[in-house]
Amino acid sequence: MIIGAGNVAWQLASAFFKAGITVEQVYARNKQSANELAKKVLAEPICSIDDLIETADLYLLCITDDSISSIAENFPPIAGIVAHTSGAKALSTLNANQNCGVFYPLQTMVKNQNTDFNEVPILCEGNSGAVEAALMDLALRLSTNVHAIDSNQRQKLHVAAVFANNFTNHMLAKAYQICTENNIPFRVLKPLIAETVEKAFIENPKLHQTGPAARNDVQTIAQHISLLRKKTDQNLYNTITQSIQNQIDETEL
Amino acid sequence: MIIGAGNVAWQLASAFFKAGITVEQVYARNKQSANELAKKVLAEPICSIDDLIETADLYLLCITDDSISSIAENFPPIAGIVAHTSGAKALSTLNANQNCGVFYPLQTMVKNQNTDFNEVPILCEGNSGAVEAALMDLALRLSTNVHAIDSNQRQKLHVAAVFANNFTNHMLAKAYQICTENNIPFRVLKPLIAETVEKAFIENPKLHQTGPAARNDVQTIAQHISLLRKKTDQNLYNTITQSIQNQIDETEL
Repeated sequence: MIIGAGNVAWQLASAFFKAGITVEQVYARNKQSANELAKKVLAEPICSIDDLIETADLYLLCITDDSISSIAENFPPIAGIVAHTSGAKALSTLNANQNCGVFYPLQTMVKNQNTDFNEVPILCEGNSGAVEAALMDLALRLSTNVHAIDSNQRQKLHVAAVFANNFTNHMLAKAYQICTENNIPFRVLKPLIAETVEKAFIENPKLHQTGPAARNDVQTIAQHISLLRKKTDQNLYNTITQSIQNQIDETEL
Repeated sequence: MIIGAGNVAWQLASAFFKAGITVEQVYARNKQSANELAKKVLAEPICSIDDLIETADLYLLCITDDSISSIAENFPPIAGIVAHTSGAKALSTLNANQNCGVFYPLQTMVKNQNTDFNEVPILCEGNSGAVEAALMDLALRLSTNVHAIDSNQRQKLHVAAVFANNFTNHMLAKAYQICTENNIPFRVLKPLIAETVEKAFIENPKLHQTGPAARNDVQTIAQHISLLRKKTDQNLYNTITQSIQNQIDETEL
């Protein structure tokens, strides 16, 4: 049972299907979205929570964080596990449900590119040992990288993941934009980025921070800001530069 | 002839030495720094510009951007090429010198980790065709990835590189900090980061921006900000979130 038809729903439903785990229904408010995903995993599409079967082992909520509690509160009384897939939401968001848990795959997903879950960390939590064990068993059918983690740690990890993934991706998007606007092939930056990421997993990335901010090359910083035409981009550059310099100062203290 | 004894000087001098290119002198204001690098590449250490030999083919400035013009202006009149290694500074910074150029290796370097230049892009520019050709010949002895690029493009590329490398590294440093403060192994983020970087070179990273900012998950954004204890970190999170949302809005217009 998959609730949702977005990127995460799409990838998890497909992975369950491939692993031989039956997905009975796909719920989405939008009929076309429900139909598309349901068709892919041979499930029944539904558009109303009232049509939920009440005998599923698991009701997996793959929906935006802000809609989790309102959807879960409207569930009929069921014996199966209700779990969400959010890094940010506490287990207690699902307290209205008898058996509840969290099934958090730590990976970025898009609809049109298959996620290989084999090495994706899946972080599980349950409101009882039995629920947690059931979620971890399920996770192990998709991935070799499964951990139990409590809500507090998961929420902190989620903030870290936003920096490491979403914010990093935005930095790459800005670099891409600057390159294409100036007829520079973006791939020229690939060795640089590969090196940066490789080094980050050898030791604390703070220890090999380089560049004008780290060197406090004030002329270069001023030049870069003048080369960025938009005020919002200038503000972004300034804020990150300041944050790098704060971090270096903290180290030296 | 290497001017400087920092990270870039250290790696380039070592790479030249390994490639069988003689480094005659190493200049650094700090005597110990000059000695250390000079010893490594069998060169003469000097601490005064007055001691420069005047017969070198190339005087390569591997120094902070802000000191390039003051050092270059104090050079004796020489026939050899004076080149800097900065992404940010225009060729015209070296106009006082008869033959001048830029030799910009697009890679992050630290002293204590050998840089393999083989695939590092080296971007060259000269104030004449002969100078540019000489710098490109030299670059080809270190790398298979050598390009001619003018000052305007190089300066834009440098801004892109700051986003792609320095700012990305800072995002990873923040993620590392949050993980270690909460007893979460940073390596759990590795598959996520690897995926993000891999996707970035398939298509415009903007197209696969995910996360609470992209989804405008306001509750999660507010929660993340409350989990960051420092005001400067909150400001950083806010600014990048806003920038992601601006970029998405631009796409939709």
